[in-house]
Parts: sequence; structure tokens; C-alpha cells
Amino acid sequence: MSFTRFDRYVDRHARSFTERLQDLCRMPSVAARGTGMRAVAEKVEQLLQRVGAGTRSFKIGSGFPIIYGECGAGPRCFLVYGHYDVQPVGQLTEWTSGPFAAVVEDGRLRARGASNSKGDLVARVSAVEAYQKTYGKLPVCLRFVVEGEDGLASPSLYRFAAENADLLRADGCVWDDGYRDTRERLVINLGFKGISFLELRCYGARTDLHSKWGGIVPNPAWRLVQALATVLSPKGVITIDGFGSHVAPLTSEDRQMLKSIELDEAGLRREFRIGSWLHGMTGRELAKELIFGPTCTICGIRTGHTEAGAKTVLPGAATARLDFRLVPDLTPGLIVELLRRHLDKRGFQDVEIIELGSAPYAKSSPSSMVARAAIESAGELYGREPLVYPLDPASGPVGAVCGANQPPMPVVSFGISYSGSNPHAPDENIRLDDFIQGIKYFGRVIHRLAALEDEDAAPKRAREPIALLNK
Amino acid sequence: MSFTRFDRYVDRHARSFTERLQDLCRMPSVAARGTGMRAVAEKVEQLLQRVGAGTRSFKIGSGFPIIYGECGAGPRCFLVYGHYDVQPVGQLTEWTSGPFAAVVEDGRLRARGASNSKGDLVARVSAVEAYQKTYGKLPVCLRFVVEGEDGLASPSLYRFAAENADLLRADGCVWDDGYRDTRERLVINLGFKGISFLELRCYGARTDLHSKWGGIVPNPAWRLVQALATVLSPKGVITIDGFGSHVAPLTSEDRQMLKSIELDEAGLRREFRIGSWLHGMTGRELAKELIFGPTCTICGIRTGHTEAGAKTVLPGAATARLDFRLVPDLTPGLIVELLRRHLDKRGFQDVEIIELGSAPYAKSSPSSMVARAAIESAGELYGREPLVYPLDPASGPVGAVCGANQPPMPVVSFGISYSGSNPHAPDENIRLDDFIQGIKYFGRVIHRLAALEDEDAAPKRAREPIALLNK
Repeated sequence: MSFTRFDRYVDRHARSFTERLQDLCRMPSVAARGTGMRAVAEKVEQLLQRVGAGTRSFKIGSGFPIIYGECGAGPRCFLVYGHYDVQPVGQLTEWTSGPFAAVVEDGRLRARGASNSKGDLVARVSAVEAYQKTYGKLPVCLRFVVEGEDGLASPSLYRFAAENADLLRADGCVWDDGYRDTRERLVINLGFKGISFLELRCYGARTDLHSKWGGIVPNPAWRLVQALATVLSPKGVITIDGFGSHVAPLTSEDRQMLKSIELDEAGLRREFRIGSWLHGMTGRELAKELIFGPTCTICGIRTGHTEAGAKTVLPGAATARLDFRLVPDLTPGLIVELLRRHLDKRGFQDVEIIELGSAPYAKSSPSSMVARAAIESAGELYGREPLVYPLDPASGPVGAVCGANQPPMPVVSFGISYSGSNPHAPDENIRLDDFIQGIKYFGRVIHRLAALEDEDAAPKRAREPIALLNK
Repeated sequence: MSFTRFDRYVDRHARSFTERLQDLCRMPSVAARGTGMRAVAEKVEQLLQRVGAGTRSFKIGSGFPIIYGECGAGPRCFLVYGHYDVQPVGQLTEWTSGPFAAVVEDGRLRARGASNSKGDLVARVSAVEAYQKTYGKLPVCLRFVVEGEDGLASPSLYRFAAENADLLRADGCVWDDGYRDTRERLVINLGFKGISFLELRCYGARTDLHSKWGGIVPNPAWRLVQALATVLSPKGVITIDGFGSHVAPLTSEDRQMLKSIELDEAGLRREFRIGSWLHGMTGRELAKELIFGPTCTICGIRTGHTEAGAKTVLPGAATARLDFRLVPDLTPGLIVELLRRHLDKRGFQDVEIIELGSAPYAKSSPSSMVARAAIESAGELYGREPLVYPLDPASGPVGAVCGANQPPMPVVSFGISYSGSNPHAPDENIRLDDFIQGIKYFGRVIHRLAALEDEDAAPKRAREPIALLNK
């Protein structure tokens, strides 16, 4: 099939697609703050309705709405995941322009959420529109699931997945994390690491005290430092008792894919402004560590006084946030269990562990339909092979969504960002060219999802459209 | 000498003395913020002028003014130290009433600065007034030195002391730190620990990154934790190479005083709401550690994201503030040197050490005139022996001030606070009874400073009044 007409439509409407994205980015939706969420959710529902999707808004408990929208029809059905919430903006002074001003400058759109991931959502919905306008009805059924709690570890989505397995039944899932690397290769992920996000808490006196008491009053900051120091060796090895024995060896497929992965080390180091990688790793070792290594990251520590002024206090409390990124066969439950036992054994029974969020890993085969559609479309559109990661080093509620099918449906992930998108940092931005290319790319993916022969063994099932409230 | 008339004057004017203190407390003077400092300095100068002091305001560079005021005359001269700046207020929500509302409730005045140490300053000036009104001219020369940078580690005072040794020449010095302990004993200090206040800084990527990079990008938070963990053992012993060999053994005078010191352990534990002391210490061991032990306290750590929202970041920087409290023969310069060498030896050359402030220790004899005047007056007024600490576990620029005389002049310190005053915490407060008693106490100290026989060997020198600008 030729995409000439499709591409022409996208180019002619590039400006209006971009404005649609700017409109969405100008609506703040920081899940951690909670304001404006309903308005953005409604806007997302309207975007889907505009391309003819039957939609429904799910409100789970006091969570932010999950927007479900279904369009197209065909023997196959695919899930398209997105989220409309955005990360906290951090220090406003570190932004070149307001995080919700959605300023376009030098071909880039700068806004909190532009990269992560309102840009992906708008690109995908725009691709549906362009497909319909140029070729008519979609040849597959696409089920959009757009949540508002990506920044809160997706509690609603977990419950939604558990309670609405029917809505999530599909032949594969398309996730929204991905970018073009420093060498402009499209990065496609065939899975995600799991995550266990924890807070460690230590307590001392009822309040911060004058530090003259430092010699005799327990200092929770020291306690926390000493407990943490037992968790990771100075060489970066996770030293929790029994941890290593739960890390599965690589499969032969993993080893095969690893061979073709070559990180743009120099480009990334420039991007991050670091002199060298952790422990001087390079090459294959570095790529293997990034993709298949479990991690334990201190995401933040808060204790005592750190503002201006020589305020010498003995802190009354100290907390650290740790995130573990999980590879097969590590599970969130296992992490908490091992860490608790490890700390107890060393006399740190007083260090509390609070679970802030978790997600299992998800890992699928490169021969699945979603994987092939994504990989082949990339080669076609971008004229070069994409970089295929067996496992995205990031995490999401992918395992819960894909697990609504048994066996878990395969997942593939890609996106319209680039290596300088700063998705969790100030000056989050996307390049508008990537956004437009992303629309063209998704059009090709849709086509292939319908046209590819299914090499997977699963028998084909007829798909009934689901009765949606507003249809 | 009978103090009946003096005490009657103080009681009759208790309300107006209190209002004078409230007025001063209602003028915010957080040195770390820097606003309102000049107004408070002028107010302090007026308070001193009101009791006939010749005053002068010293502005050192861009620092906050040092108010110098001299009153009385006699063969002896004593320095009276004070400061008009206050600590940052911290979380406003943790205050029962506004930190600058200076509300009186249940016989307590609640205000930032009431205890530390506007209350002491107003009590002392009020005592001078009462003395003059009832007995006439002061029989000694008192030289008030009131700085505005206690919360900034007193940079101006150090330069002032170095450049104006003449103004600081005296037979002894009265400092303003002290309180009544949980058993209502007046605590008198014969010296202060020194302090070395440092910031340790580690850097990673140019900004906080998505924590998926945790496996391969250096994490400054881990680096900081691992460096800190080498500084103090889990048992609380400072493990910096060579540190212990610089801690002088106790003198026989120290051991003698230590015998009479008994901490109100249960009362303090209740006050702090802690189950036990560090490492289960009690009794003599606990008192010895508090008074003669050097400390290394983590005063604060800041890194990454610790606010609401599951923001999993790999921090770009991590900083910790450490304060060391110094006993003989530890000096601030030695601490930095030992710590630097210690970290370097363990491969932590990348951990920066920034000096935020420092002060040498000061330690004087219990037979000095200031010590005897304070101890005897306490016995007389409060009807019970004070608790005499050979060394206050806190620190100040005492060493620099006292060292303007050679040999360093003896120092004694006491104050009008009590064990629940929270001088560095929310709800800082004093009991008004303590404030009024403090005025009566200082009147007796003034009298004794003039009347006591000088048991110290130093030959008496005639004191010339110093020509002050506004005299």
C-alpha cells in the first residue's frame, strides 16, 4: 500500500495537529497536584470522539478518570495505551518558558507533558484521523486506554485492568514510551522493567533539635545513611541478601538482540554531561547493564535543614525514596521481603519501609505482531533499522494491562520524543518534525497490524465490538 | 548588699520589661533572610542608649551591624555578648501562633528569638536600668557587643574582633547561652565546644534524570551516602582517620566537675520524646559524652525529589550538611584537613567539602571572676546550686571574642530559657517568670563582678573608657 495520500494529508494538517497538541499541553494535569485533571480527561475523550471512537470514562474510587475509546473494526484488535497526566514541574526558575505555555521555538514545542506523553497521544489520534480521511475505516479495532495516574504509579489502572479484563482483551498492546536516540534511531521496546518504589523512614526526637545534642540523641539521618550503605556496595552492586539469586540469566533471544544494540555512548554522555559511565563501563557491558541489570536508585533524601542559613540541627526524621527496576524474575513483593529481612538482620528493625508503588516487568517476543509491525514500519518510514530493546529500562503498569490476557499479550512501545526531551526534568520538549513523523509512522503501524500474517501460534478469535455508553 | 529595692523595682516594671521584649520579638530578624535587620539593630542601639550607654554601630563589609555599647565605670570591665538575629522559622504550620506575633499564653512568651536570644539581651539591659534606678551608677564597666549574624556563623564578629581588640579588652566575658534544665537548675557554662560546619557535595548528570538510567549513570546520592558511611560507625564512633588522637584527655578539674553533673535523663527523654539515648548510654557515660565528646552530626541532606508524587528520578546532585562540635584539642582547620585526607584515601576525591562556618572551642576556669560571680549569684537567687558545665555542648564565636585578650579572657554563659524553649525549632518560647528572674539574677551578677576579690593571678589594669561616637 502506498502512503502518499496519507502523508500528504498529515503534512497539510501539520499545523492543526500541532495546535491540538499545544491546546492539550496548555491544560496543566500534574497528577501529584490533582487540579485540572477532569478537564484534561474530558478533552482527551473529545479528541477520541472526534475520530469516531466510542468512548467511556471510568472513575475508580477517588482516582482520576480512565478514558477508554474504541474505533475501527476488523478481525484483530489492539490496545493503545496513553496517559494524560504529567510530571510535577519542579523548579520553575529552571524552565526557559512556562511549563504550560507550550511555546514553539526553533522547531521545538516546550511544555510539561509534550514528550511524556501528550505528544504521543495526539500523534496517534491524528494518525487515526488521517487514515480515515484518506483510506476510510480502520482495518483493525484499536482500543485506546488513557489514564491520568502515570505519575502516581497508576493505582486506578491496576483496578481497572483487574475489573475490566474484557475491555483489555486484544492481540497486542502499543505503549507510549520511546524516543529517537542521539543517533536518530527510533527506539522500540519489547517490554519494560518492573518497579518497586519504596520510602525508607527513620525517626529520632519529636522535632529537629539543636545539634549540640548530636553526641547523645539518636540521629535518624545517620541511621538512614548507615542502613542505605548496606544496600549497595561502592562498586554499585546491590548487596541485599539473596537478591542476585533471583535474577534470571539472559535467554538466547536476549543475547541475540543485545548484539545489535550499541548505545551512542558519547552522545548520551554529552547529553547528560557526565565524564564516564558508572564504574567505567563501556560497550556491550554497558548496554547489558542498562537493559538487563536490576537497579536500586536513591531518588531523593530529605532530612533536616538544607536551606539558606547556618541552621545546625539534629534532624527529628529522615526519609529516602528508593526505586528498584526489576528484570526477570524479580517481583515487587520479593523486593520488599528481601529488603526487610536484610535490614532486620543488620539491626535496622527501626527503619520503616513504605511501598509507594510497584509494577511487574513485561517482556515479549520480537516475532509478535505488534513487534513486527513496529519494526518493519520504522525501517520503511525512517529508512533505517530501529534500535530494538528487549526490555525498556523504564517501567509502567504494562504487566497489569497485558496480563488481562492469558497468556499475557505482547507489548511494543515507541514514541515521538528524542534524546533531549527531558521527560522528567525542566524544559521538557519535543521536536515538531518528530511529532509529524510520529503521525505518519503510526499510520503505517495501523496498516501493518491489519495486514501482517500472524506468525504466533494463538488461534484467531472473532472480535465483538464492545457496547460503549456514548456510542 | 541587699537586693530588696532592686527586686521591687524589677517586679514593679515587669510588665513594661516584658512589653519591651515583645516589641523586639515582633521585629523579624532572620539573618538568613536578611530583611528587617537594620531596624532591629537600631532598636537594640536605642535600648542601650536608654540606660545611658555610649553606643556605636559597626558595619563590616556587607554584614549586619554589630552594636557596641558601653555603660558604667569601675576598675573592672566585662564584656556582655548578645545577638539580635534569630533562626529561620521553619514550617509555619508547625507553630501554634505566628513566630513574630510574640503571643503571651500561660505565662509563656512564644516567638522566634524569645529564647535565642532577645530575651537575654532585654533582661540584661533591664537589669542595668533597675540597678541604676535603685543604686545609681554601675560599679563596673560593661561592654555590650550585640551582633546580627549568630545564624550565619558570625562572619562580621570575627572580623570585628580581629580589628577592634581594644574594644574587647576586659576581665571576662558573659555569654548569652543557657537555660534552666528539666529540674529547674540554672545551667552555667564555663566554655563552649568549637564547631566546624561543612557541606559535602556530589555531582552526577547535569540535571535530575529519569531513574531508568540508574544502572549506568553515576548517582551522586549513592556516592554521598557511601562517603558519609565511612565517617561514622553504626555505633556512633567518628571513624575519620587520625581523629581520635587529637582529642585531649580530661583534666583533673574536668573530672571533678563531671562528678557533680547529673543529667535529668528521664526529663530530657520526655522532652525529646526518645526511648533511649544513643547506643543506650546512661549516667556518667552519657554526661561525659554530651560535654566532652566531639560530635559529627548530619544536619541535613538534600537530593532528588522528595515531595508529593511518585517522581522517580536519578538525582543530578546531592548535598549533606555536617557539623562537628569540637573539644580540646580539635580545631576547625584540622577537621577539614583530616576529613579531606580520609575521603581521598577511600577514593572519594570527587566529594567536595565546602566550609560553611567555624569557631574554635573556648574553655575557662571555675575560679575566674565571671564564673564565681555567676555561680554564687545563682546559689543566692535561686536557693540551689546551679549546674556548672565545664563546656557547653553548643558553640559560638566565643573563642574569637575572648581571644582578643591574651591570654584569652575567661567566659561564662547563662540565660533565661528553660528546657522546653525550642530555640532552634517551632514554638520557641520562654517563661515570663524566668525572664523576670533573669533580670534579678543579672543585677546580682553585676554587683559581684565589681565586689569579688580577684583570685586570678593577672595584675589589675586601670580601664579607660573608650571614646564612642555618640557619647
